[in-house]
Amino acid sequence: MAQTTSRTGEVMEAIRARIASRSLSRGDRLPSIRALAATLKVSPSTVVEAYDRLAAEGVVLSRPGSGFYVSAEVVTPAVSDLGTRADRAIDPLWVSRQSLDAAAAALKPGCGWLPPDWMPDAILRRAMRGLARADDALLADYGPSRGLPELRRLLARRFATEGLDIGPDQVLLTASGTQAIDLICRTLLRPGDAVLVDDPCYFNFQALLRAHKARIVSAPYTPNGPDVSSFARVVAEARPRLYITNSAIHNPTGATMSAQTAHRLLTVASAHGLVIVEDDIFAEFEPEPSPRLAAFDGLVNVIRIGSFSKTLSASIRCGYIAARPDWIEAMVDLQVATHFGGASPVAARVVFDSLMDSGYRRHVEALRRRLSGARREAAARLADLGVRTWVTPRGGFYLWGRLPDGRDGSDLARLALDEDVILAPGNVFSAAQSAPDFMRFNVGQMRDPRVFTVLKGALARR
Amino acid sequence: MAQTTSRTGEVMEAIRARIASRSLSRGDRLPSIRALAATLKVSPSTVVEAYDRLAAEGVVLSRPGSGFYVSAEVVTPAVSDLGTRADRAIDPLWVSRQSLDAAAAALKPGCGWLPPDWMPDAILRRAMRGLARADDALLADYGPSRGLPELRRLLARRFATEGLDIGPDQVLLTASGTQAIDLICRTLLRPGDAVLVDDPCYFNFQALLRAHKARIVSAPYTPNGPDVSSFARVVAEARPRLYITNSAIHNPTGATMSAQTAHRLLTVASAHGLVIVEDDIFAEFEPEPSPRLAAFDGLVNVIRIGSFSKTLSASIRCGYIAARPDWIEAMVDLQVATHFGGASPVAARVVFDSLMDSGYRRHVEALRRRLSGARREAAARLADLGVRTWVTPRGGFYLWGRLPDGRDGSDLARLALDEDVILAPGNVFSAAQSAPDFMRFNVGQMRDPRVFTVLKGALARR
Repeated sequence: MAQTTSRTGEVMEAIRARIASRSLSRGDRLPSIRALAATLKVSPSTVVEAYDRLAAEGVVLSRPGSGFYVSAEVVTPAVSDLGTRADRAIDPLWVSRQSLDAAAAALKPGCGWLPPDWMPDAILRRAMRGLARADDALLADYGPSRGLPELRRLLARRFATEGLDIGPDQVLLTASGTQAIDLICRTLLRPGDAVLVDDPCYFNFQALLRAHKARIVSAPYTPNGPDVSSFARVVAEARPRLYITNSAIHNPTGATMSAQTAHRLLTVASAHGLVIVEDDIFAEFEPEPSPRLAAFDGLVNVIRIGSFSKTLSASIRCGYIAARPDWIEAMVDLQVATHFGGASPVAARVVFDSLMDSGYRRHVEALRRRLSGARREAAARLADLGVRTWVTPRGGFYLWGRLPDGRDGSDLARLALDEDVILAPGNVFSAAQSAPDFMRFNVGQMRDPRVFTVLKGALARR
Repeated sequence: MAQTTSRTGEVMEAIRARIASRSLSRGDRLPSIRALAATLKVSPSTVVEAYDRLAAEGVVLSRPGSGFYVSAEVVTPAVSDLGTRADRAIDPLWVSRQSLDAAAAALKPGCGWLPPDWMPDAILRRAMRGLARADDALLADYGPSRGLPELRRLLARRFATEGLDIGPDQVLLTASGTQAIDLICRTLLRPGDAVLVDDPCYFNFQALLRAHKARIVSAPYTPNGPDVSSFARVVAEARPRLYITNSAIHNPTGATMSAQTAHRLLTVASAHGLVIVEDDIFAEFEPEPSPRLAAFDGLVNVIRIGSFSKTLSASIRCGYIAARPDWIEAMVDLQVATHFGGASPVAARVVFDSLMDSGYRRHVEALRRRLSGARREAAARLADLGVRTWVTPRGGFYLWGRLPDGRDGSDLARLALDEDVILAPGNVFSAAQSAPDFMRFNVGQMRDPRVFTVLKGALARR
């Protein structure tokens, strides 16, 4: 990401943002070099360099003696609706892109996964060696359109132990948990439909919903789940088609929904024909299972999705959807049309073999114990810096912390980025922009004391 | 697929299709059992069974003494726009779903891939064993947002040898070739935009474009590529935003575009701001490279996509997009928002190791020789049945055959399916429905003589 943090990169980004937001259209003249240099507080030679590079990319045209113009070939991509802005620090995609593309030396307390050495290395390697001996067909062929039957049967059996009694044909494998939600949105949403999320919620729900041109509405989240009366009011007023949430352990707060809240949400959902998408991705981190909307409801108004990225591997891409048969059937068609299938059969096999490995259960238990210690330690060190934890999570790797003295999380994230520390500022998670002084911390990524040194230094700067 | 071929399944499908097409809406009364039985020529008890199963799925409600009604909870899925119909034999998704979900004993001359034992087994297993010794991070972590750098660099070097000089940052890895096109459509299309395809073209282009609510227009394909004057006329009239085509070896005809045609298409495209998506998926099957639009054009108006499903493995999901830097950047964002990344790092590593394996080149050469013999043999046996090959392909595994006596390909496909033989009828490939008496044959899937016995039997029935 060196380029986008450089001065030239910032100028290029600013011009691209204006094109994306249509404040500059095809054929428009770009601002003069002198004017833009003054506005952005950079040297004129930086603007020249940026314009030249945009010209090399075909985004702008140089007309000698006349200036620079937005190229006639420029297509303003539909992705502009994702909300790309020059000020990417409060863009829901900012944390994802920074975390994914971070240099090896960067520290990532803002990212959404555990370091690779917390993952079950030996189990994964055993599964890979097993693959090397698998059938020809598994290694080379397309799989069935719903995905590997063994894994779907295993998931259906697991759901049954949680009180959700469905057949394996109601389980569809996808390439990831995110793609599962994307497929649901493509099947059930039309542009302009309202979708309800928690405030705060996992930031990528917002990026995804913007890609669908959905109208995002939100209800405040409490330590026991969504605030039910706000939830009911928003549902009645905005008539959202979907509500997307994390159950088990909520992202970013780490809170758990109570059974009472679950019941009340389902009652509201049922009365208004609201479909709930329950993302179960953190379920394995719970010490004991919390109320699950899908199990309460039996997949009438609820669609359950999940993946294995947090406890097994994020590199082995595999997610799933459990839903009503008619919706699954429609999503099978859509997944064939748009991906020619979901999870790779090879990936699904590695997941299946790993989940069946006798070491997997022990791995998850060890992970929970380790995280319990890491949460305590990180919360104490944050408290020393004046950062207060909003709730004490029952499991998982997130802490939702309020910064001291109303400090702005985005400012802090920009300062930390200069020192190669990637933070996740609160408003990235808040559709209502109600969490400027919050920050999500990943305790699994805070073992290096430099995280706290940098945080302390940034908090000291005003 | 036993269910959908059963009588009950057909009735259920017919009702679902009416709901999807909105000829039945929420709350509407279903046709009476007697009336529907007469219309569909099935017994009343079959309709009762179908209605009961739809009620169990929640699609319809039974009101004792009054009849069956479309459930108030039924959401007409957006996927209805994929064009699902009761008569699925001429649905572009029909061949895909049948081929993917075929029983092990089924023969699949209509499917779009080679049998697994034609794939480079030893190379794949070596790559898998290599994976078992890979870094922790590769096995467990998310990869960079553009995908595995080694594979992107290798692709950029390969493109350079074909005269397409781009850097690895202009290559984005995706989960499949189909997903690559989907991502391009999501970035560049708005609902209602026209998209040009060949007549005939790969059927899934149509399924995908319907999912995007694109207006599909087509131009006739000749043995030298699209008919240029029709192409120019359609472009001028319909103003399509994209043209999607297979270069190298065309699906379904097996024809190759001439350099002259390539030049003329690019001239038309450039004059009208038409973006060309060139799907290179069959390039490795060519004895020597044919004109490549991306190389002629240098990625100004052309986007190149491809995958490794046809010569390496369809189970290891990995595709790519090569395009202008600003489009790649927009697609990286969109892929993070909707998939949290593209190709799995593990899959990309297997592809990279396999392509670098010294045995891979020999595998591809052996494949070409083997296919050359298989094409000759299949063409001769088809000719014995009166099926004439439209063009003699230079490579690949497809033959585009005209049926004798104006026989209807869809009728034939239905007859063959009763004997567990999956065929690909011509109109599935034709947006203009101009190929009722054609059929696409996959010579790699025709080694079992029963294919010809069943075909002969079906042709004999009138």
